[in-house]
Amino acid sequence: MIRHVAVFRFVPEFTTEHREHWMALVRALPDRIPQLRSMTVGADVLRGPASYELAIVADFDDLDGLEAYTRHPAHAEVLRISAPVKASLATVDFEIPDAS
Amino acid sequence: MIRHVAVFRFVPEFTTEHREHWMALVRALPDRIPQLRSMTVGADVLRGPASYELAIVADFDDLDGLEAYTRHPAHAEVLRISAPVKASLATVDFEIPDAS
Repeated sequence: MIRHVAVFRFVPEFTTEHREHWMALVRALPDRIPQLRSMTVGADVLRGPASYELAIVADFDDLDGLEAYTRHPAHAEVLRISAPVKASLATVDFEIPDAS
Repeated sequence: MIRHVAVFRFVPEFTTEHREHWMALVRALPDRIPQLRSMTVGADVLRGPASYELAIVADFDDLDGLEAYTRHPAHAEVLRISAPVKASLATVDFEIPDAS
């Protein structure tokens, strides 16, 4: 399995209401992108010194599935909202043995 | 459920062998910390412009469980290795409805 992790900071103009709308779109992606096995998304609750503001964790069978997600029009819709307001992004894509 | 996400960049002196050893310690934490419901850790395979190098995703029943993990001696052992070689860290701690 491939796990895609992304953490974001956004500009302040991207309000709580905007963020909730964006997260709802992200949560709906598994219904629209068959290669997306599962998706979690949420806003940080700890606000520590290293904390970013939002995270997504998306799971795929393999790298082909991740690439299909990246190229999917439903993913592009989500990106059209977040890309202009993104202040920082850090990602890691890593393999998980299927037994875990 | 609370999901703790952390992505790391390390100094180059923290070699592949060191990283594998460190990840093995992290993978063993659920056997040592009862509040840690599940843990995945891995090295980035995409190496894109926003890619960090390693990620962990750890799940807890609640914030009390996350705090118990943070204070646990087994977690301190892992931190003693990674803290001196950490170049960048970004975290997000977010709630997931238990149905998901």
